[in-house]
Amino acid sequence: MTSPEHVSQQLSQFFATHLPVTQFMQMDVESYDGKTLILKAPLAPNINDKQTAFGGSLYNASVMACWGMAHLKTLEAGIVCNQVVTKANIEYLAPVHGDIRAICESPSDDEIKKFISQFHAKGRSRLTLHARIECSGKLAVKFEGTYAILKE
Amino acid sequence: MTSPEHVSQQLSQFFATHLPVTQFMQMDVESYDGKTLILKAPLAPNINDKQTAFGGSLYNASVMACWGMAHLKTLEAGIVCNQVVTKANIEYLAPVHGDIRAICESPSDDEIKKFISQFHAKGRSRLTLHARIECSGKLAVKFEGTYAILKE
Repeated sequence: MTSPEHVSQQLSQFFATHLPVTQFMQMDVESYDGKTLILKAPLAPNINDKQTAFGGSLYNASVMACWGMAHLKTLEAGIVCNQVVTKANIEYLAPVHGDIRAICESPSDDEIKKFISQFHAKGRSRLTLHARIECSGKLAVKFEGTYAILKE
Repeated sequence: MTSPEHVSQQLSQFFATHLPVTQFMQMDVESYDGKTLILKAPLAPNINDKQTAFGGSLYNASVMACWGMAHLKTLEAGIVCNQVVTKANIEYLAPVHGDIRAICESPSDDEIKKFISQFHAKGRSRLTLHARIECSGKLAVKFEGTYAILKE
């Protein structure tokens, strides 16, 4: 098991190496403590016509916060695999007037155990995760995404 | 009623003026004939670790194709309003190996009439639209988004 700091650095590195859109967005890991992953992105590159955060950027931050959580859990379990998002839904409840912070909480230990053991048994597994974005203490975005991992 | 060419130029201009993320993605209007709006974006800036299109970019192209369709319908009706996406869901069915083309078909004339007359009566209205992205003739992405328009 590697440390939260190490795996969150690996995630930042992954964004920088493989996902140019996240770099334009200036998306990066704000923190990861093993339970909560927070991705951040400043407002400026992600702005829209209303001077608030673009809905597409709010989605991207959310989908990558959950993607990151699933990725970190596989790294922590020592699994090397392909990981893809298979479906997602998002609700925009309020505008985001400042920087974007997408927060994903780890699923329960039982859910992670099931996710990992299913992968070892079948070579593929699936996990549904949630993210939220708040603005001035108010829930602004609710996101749910399903991720599949597959043997490389 | 302005021409399809004119309103699709207005949409390109809107992206260029207000949405920096779409400019990084090189997203633009491929065509609009009054019935079908196609947005395009080349693979290179939207690539992921698998050398296919990033799921976030596929979402952005889809959400803006439907946003664009709703926007064009309000422009054609001579309405000036605020327009926002309120919720969306997306299914990723297959990877996209080349350039992104997000296709949104116009809803029926009856649905548009209802959308516009509701706005005139109440100062707000809502429309659900669909987009798809194909790759090598296969459906790769299914998207549904709901858009609200409000008096400015």
